[in-house]
Amino acid sequence: MNILLINPNTSTAMTRAIADAAAAVAAPGTRIMATQASFGALSIESYYDEAYAAAGVAEQMRSDQARSADAVVLACFGDPGLDAARECINAPVIGIAEAAFHTACLVAHRFSVVTTLRRTCPMAQHLLQRYGLAARCAGVHGTDIPVLALEACDEATVAQIEAAARQALAQDGSEAIVLGCAGMAPLCAQLSARLGVPVIDGVTAAIKLAEGLHALGLKTSKLGSYARPLPKPYQGWASGLGW
Amino acid sequence: MNILLINPNTSTAMTRAIADAAAAVAAPGTRIMATQASFGALSIESYYDEAYAAAGVAEQMRSDQARSADAVVLACFGDPGLDAARECINAPVIGIAEAAFHTACLVAHRFSVVTTLRRTCPMAQHLLQRYGLAARCAGVHGTDIPVLALEACDEATVAQIEAAARQALAQDGSEAIVLGCAGMAPLCAQLSARLGVPVIDGVTAAIKLAEGLHALGLKTSKLGSYARPLPKPYQGWASGLGW
Amino acid sequence: MNILLINPNTSTAMTRAIADAAAAVAAPGTRIMATQASFGALSIESYYDEAYAAAGVAEQMRSDQARSADAVVLACFGDPGLDAARECINAPVIGIAEAAFHTACLVAHRFSVVTTLRRTCPMAQHLLQRYGLAARCAGVHGTDIPVLALEACDEATVAQIEAAARQALAQDGSEAIVLGCAGMAPLCAQLSARLGVPVIDGVTAAIKLAEGLHALGLKTSKLGSYARPLPKPYQGWASGLGW
Amino acid sequence: MNILLINPNTSTAMTRAIADAAAAVAAPGTRIMATQASFGALSIESYYDEAYAAAGVAEQMRSDQARSADAVVLACFGDPGLDAARECINAPVIGIAEAAFHTACLVAHRFSVVTTLRRTCPMAQHLLQRYGLAARCAGVHGTDIPVLALEACDEATVAQIEAAARQALAQDGSEAIVLGCAGMAPLCAQLSARLGVPVIDGVTAAIKLAEGLHALGLKTSKLGSYARPLPKPYQGWASGLGW
Amino acid sequence: MNILLINPNTSTAMTRAIADAAAAVAAPGTRIMATQASFGALSIESYYDEAYAAAGVAEQMRSDQARSADAVVLACFGDPGLDAARECINAPVIGIAEAAFHTACLVAHRFSVVTTLRRTCPMAQHLLQRYGLAARCAGVHGTDIPVLALEACDEATVAQIEAAARQALAQDGSEAIVLGCAGMAPLCAQLSARLGVPVIDGVTAAIKLAEGLHALGLKTSKLGSYARPLPKPYQGWASGLGW
Amino acid sequence: MNILLINPNTSTAMTRAIADAAAAVAAPGTRIMATQASFGALSIESYYDEAYAAAGVAEQMRSDQARSADAVVLACFGDPGLDAARECINAPVIGIAEAAFHTACLVAHRFSVVTTLRRTCPMAQHLLQRYGLAARCAGVHGTDIPVLALEACDEATVAQIEAAARQALAQDGSEAIVLGCAGMAPLCAQLSARLGVPVIDGVTAAIKLAEGLHALGLKTSKLGSYARPLPKPYQGWASGLGW
Repeated sequence: MNILLINPNTSTAMTRAIADAAAAVAAPGTRIMATQASFGALSIESYYDEAYAAAGVAEQMRSDQARSADAVVLACFGDPGLDAARECINAPVIGIAEAAFHTACLVAHRFSVVTTLRRTCPMAQHLLQRYGLAARCAGVHGTDIPVLALEACDEATVAQIEAAARQALAQDGSEAIVLGCAGMAPLCAQLSARLGVPVIDGVTAAIKLAEGLHALGLKTSKLGSYARPLPKPYQGWASGLGW
Repeated sequence: MNILLINPNTSTAMTRAIADAAAAVAAPGTRIMATQASFGALSIESYYDEAYAAAGVAEQMRSDQARSADAVVLACFGDPGLDAARECINAPVIGIAEAAFHTACLVAHRFSVVTTLRRTCPMAQHLLQRYGLAARCAGVHGTDIPVLALEACDEATVAQIEAAARQALAQDGSEAIVLGCAGMAPLCAQLSARLGVPVIDGVTAAIKLAEGLHALGLKTSKLGSYARPLPKPYQGWASGLGW
Repeated sequence: MNILLINPNTSTAMTRAIADAAAAVAAPGTRIMATQASFGALSIESYYDEAYAAAGVAEQMRSDQARSADAVVLACFGDPGLDAARECINAPVIGIAEAAFHTACLVAHRFSVVTTLRRTCPMAQHLLQRYGLAARCAGVHGTDIPVLALEACDEATVAQIEAAARQALAQDGSEAIVLGCAGMAPLCAQLSARLGVPVIDGVTAAIKLAEGLHALGLKTSKLGSYARPLPKPYQGWASGLGW
Repeated sequence: MNILLINPNTSTAMTRAIADAAAAVAAPGTRIMATQASFGALSIESYYDEAYAAAGVAEQMRSDQARSADAVVLACFGDPGLDAARECINAPVIGIAEAAFHTACLVAHRFSVVTTLRRTCPMAQHLLQRYGLAARCAGVHGTDIPVLALEACDEATVAQIEAAARQALAQDGSEAIVLGCAGMAPLCAQLSARLGVPVIDGVTAAIKLAEGLHALGLKTSKLGSYARPLPKPYQGWASGLGW
Repeated sequence: MNILLINPNTSTAMTRAIADAAAAVAAPGTRIMATQASFGALSIESYYDEAYAAAGVAEQMRSDQARSADAVVLACFGDPGLDAARECINAPVIGIAEAAFHTACLVAHRFSVVTTLRRTCPMAQHLLQRYGLAARCAGVHGTDIPVLALEACDEATVAQIEAAARQALAQDGSEAIVLGCAGMAPLCAQLSARLGVPVIDGVTAAIKLAEGLHALGLKTSKLGSYARPLPKPYQGWASGLGW
Repeated sequence: MNILLINPNTSTAMTRAIADAAAAVAAPGTRIMATQASFGALSIESYYDEAYAAAGVAEQMRSDQARSADAVVLACFGDPGLDAARECINAPVIGIAEAAFHTACLVAHRFSVVTTLRRTCPMAQHLLQRYGLAARCAGVHGTDIPVLALEACDEATVAQIEAAARQALAQDGSEAIVLGCAGMAPLCAQLSARLGVPVIDGVTAAIKLAEGLHALGLKTSKLGSYARPLPKPYQGWASGLGW
């Protein structure tokens, strides 16, 4: 099967890192195609950045790659553009935040999220509420590590995340850790080994969920809110992008 | 005071209609400046349309008009780009859906929403949940009237909305009606007279809330999630739009 | 327009202070008429006090002032008698707690309440739950400052509230402060300047909401729970007060 | 033990009927003392009536009977003045609505409430929310039978309540019926026999809960919100009623 | 009346201790019959233990004692087998956790639970959620005292529970303590005297609720989920236990 | 990898049918080992049946097959014994109800459950609440088809389920159907084709989730509530089953 992995920001370095993490867990017959938004921010750390990222995802959903993909994974923890993407194709679309949340529910009573900037914690809280999973999350914790600093993956960064995770587990009485940024995917195995509890990275979790849905023949429902967008005129730089 | 009214779609006709509705309730000292997104859909009837609209709102928040406004009102019932817009300036920013919901709470125990396409009902439900007001809404009802059909404002359309509202009041046991589309603003007085219960239009409600916040000297908190976006490089058509 | 401001306790000094705060933000055409309960406690700091205050508000709603008012504001943070008052007239009735909560939602992701006696914190929590806004409040904090001590408005009192507010913001991860007592209205500007985040006082917030509803022509729904009280015999000291 | 049964309205006929219902289930050693508010409405069918009733209950809590009672039961389904009453004495105070709700939870997965006027349904919903039991109630149904019409207890009234109960069970998928008015207490056995499901009347339920708490030596907590009211001057007709 | 008290674990010593606690509060006409599961664990401290305990309760419900009882009380704080037991007879069945929670709601705004092993705290949280009472509980606190260590009832154990309770009251802002283990029943009076707030033990609370339901003639609803189990073949060691 | 599929009832015919459904979606390297409870009911249609089933699952978790499995799937829609099973091994354990719920969330805004006996609907509702997913389910619908009647898989049964599903989609405004019984697994493809919306069967969904967790190296957290059961004496028929 073909999974299109869309990085909603414009960092090709992060796209590569995410694609590598995805490929490492993909089943033999799974081909990962990775791309990123054609416009917008190098990293997504505010609602402002996220607004462009969602439009960037929407635009990518018109590509031949998207239309022919067996599943699409959106690789930013805010799941920007997820609902829009679901409207565009029949194949399933999965956001990495929802993937991580649902997966964590299968191995722990309650989990904590450890993310990057503290200002983005409400974003994760909104998603948990939106997905109906707020009761399963015991706390969302910011580390104030900038997203792009994750690319270095140095020991100091790992140690800082580990410390935040240990504090979250103790303070929240939780049993697992969800990593709150696609950029943390490469650190997942290392953190898991150090912490001794399940550590869930959304990118890899989403790949396995996508494979599972595909094997089951499950596609996005077209009955209600995820029906195809209505055709209509678009204007400005987006003039060709009306459905 | 100056209120910038941003229409997140690209219909100048709708911008004018909304601006007229806003001006009709504005206080003597209030100046309404109306604009619309520079790109995207003529009407917003899907998550796909909304993704572009949110980015369109974000772009508008960089204008001199926005930076110098005493308040900003976003005139689409999905409140696209609301969080992003709040980050961009100190002055308050109000979405018409949240304005309508909060206002309805002051005159009724519970309210019903009557909106356009049925497929957009979950959007309103998500907003209610997000704003913490789901318990005050007794039902969200689609009429399958297209947004642009509202421009005509003919008797058939008004009658259809009236019928849906009557059914909602009876079925939901609710006490007031929230109109679920900016394009319904011009019909508010008429529907109110016919129905004999409070009918709340978000555009006019938002104008009065904006005036109130301004008079109280209240601005968006910059302490947490609505702090200014971090400066960073943007790429593609948005290359100049990084903060 | 005429706004009747009802102080549910019997302190004329507090009535004057509240009326001054209200007048300071009223629009040019707004006339503030202030009155207080004809019976009951000098300050409301228990459910027992509140029970009399609600009846006191109900009695005031029979006055000519109330019947001819364009809006009524109830100036005690427990919103005593709010539902009863809504039944009595067509014009909108607003409690200062609900006014503060709804207003705070427009400028912050989540807010904290700083109030007087710790024993009254559950009252505020009940109101938040009742209004459907519990999810928007990150914490309710008592200072154990007696209500009447607020009349002095001395530096020690302001400093104590400021300290409690700072702690609330840090501990709750909130972004704005709601002042949990009508008697704190005169301190709002000062606290706002010191804290650097939105500080919302319910008295002034209610005045602006009342003006807004009046301008929109919105009145309390009479369809359901707020219909006029049924006429019936009343006995004892209240023998003339049946509707 | 002595149980003071306070009827929050001023109907001595209803007080007698309620006292009879209570006495019929009281344990051998239990003495029921019944009284009613010294002022206010003959029946409680609006928030306006309820405001006076709560004050009426508060006043009754100052009586020698209340101070020496082993438990107090408030016999109006709105539980008016319940929190205030709890502050006034150490002995437990129980409202008949909470008594009915908690009791119903012990014999059914979910229950429906059948009450008098439809306009009072939101009152019951507020109580359910307040007590944290909203999830256990599948529906609140008004019959528009006036409270005082219940005194007649004629077949037409019983049949109307029975019909409403049957419809509630079918429509709500519930398993028991809570009677939503103290005046329905005398009909409980009859309805129970006809319906074949548990029918819970709050008056009798409260008596048994009061006996149980007394036997266990459990009294109202004085640690927090139910501490004794603070002593303070009261004015007007209530001038002697400050604590 | 006859109350069958079922200890879901297999410790006859605990059965005796619980029966003594029950007998101490039983009304004159109440006969307590105590028994325990015929198989399973000596104490219930994990979901694994609980799975056998629920089956053990189900088996006991087939006994003549159960079939002729006027009420059944399940004396383990996890309420194992409660729903199954309700299906088996018409008489009411009460779990001690639900009994404690409902009783605590009558004497305090919010309560805290103090239990044995920390790993069992989620069990109590699940029950609170299941019963719809999560909002009334301010916290669940483990002491890591093994269940069987409670049999000794020595001063060190009491002091440890007292300390945990004091910390819970302070930290949670709660007003009463629920003891989270049937084995704590003998300590209830002592802890109550030391703490000065209501301390609720589920065993004694359940006895009084059972007496109350019996006096009211209330039995488990047979309309829906608690209808008699369908007759069907059972296999293995349980081959005779099909209904 | 090896997945142990435990049928919590004692029907070997159902075990075979479920195993076939599982095998049909298993990845090439996945070996399905199927077993059933050694005791208890032929089908699980009441809380009484479920109590034995949970113990039956607990017993199976002690087998060599369970201890050496890479994942365990519990194939009864009530997820009986799920928490107990998680304590017993490190490998992940998945219930088919939770599998179906989480999977449905990925392809639909909200889903409806269509199950067997109406009396079991509250069981599904409890699970949804327990898993934190109640908000994603728009309705649970019983068909009153007995579990064992599903073995026939005849057209009448399929048509009855189809009709119930169509009604659920219309009435609930949902977008996907979750089949509420392991015995419906063989009908999933057929129903999906007829209904044109995603139809989710928990057995196959659980297999894919189990494969995903295994590939990610994720195991049940042992930090808190799912730690290994404490070793202790067991009595009666279960005397050898203490941990």
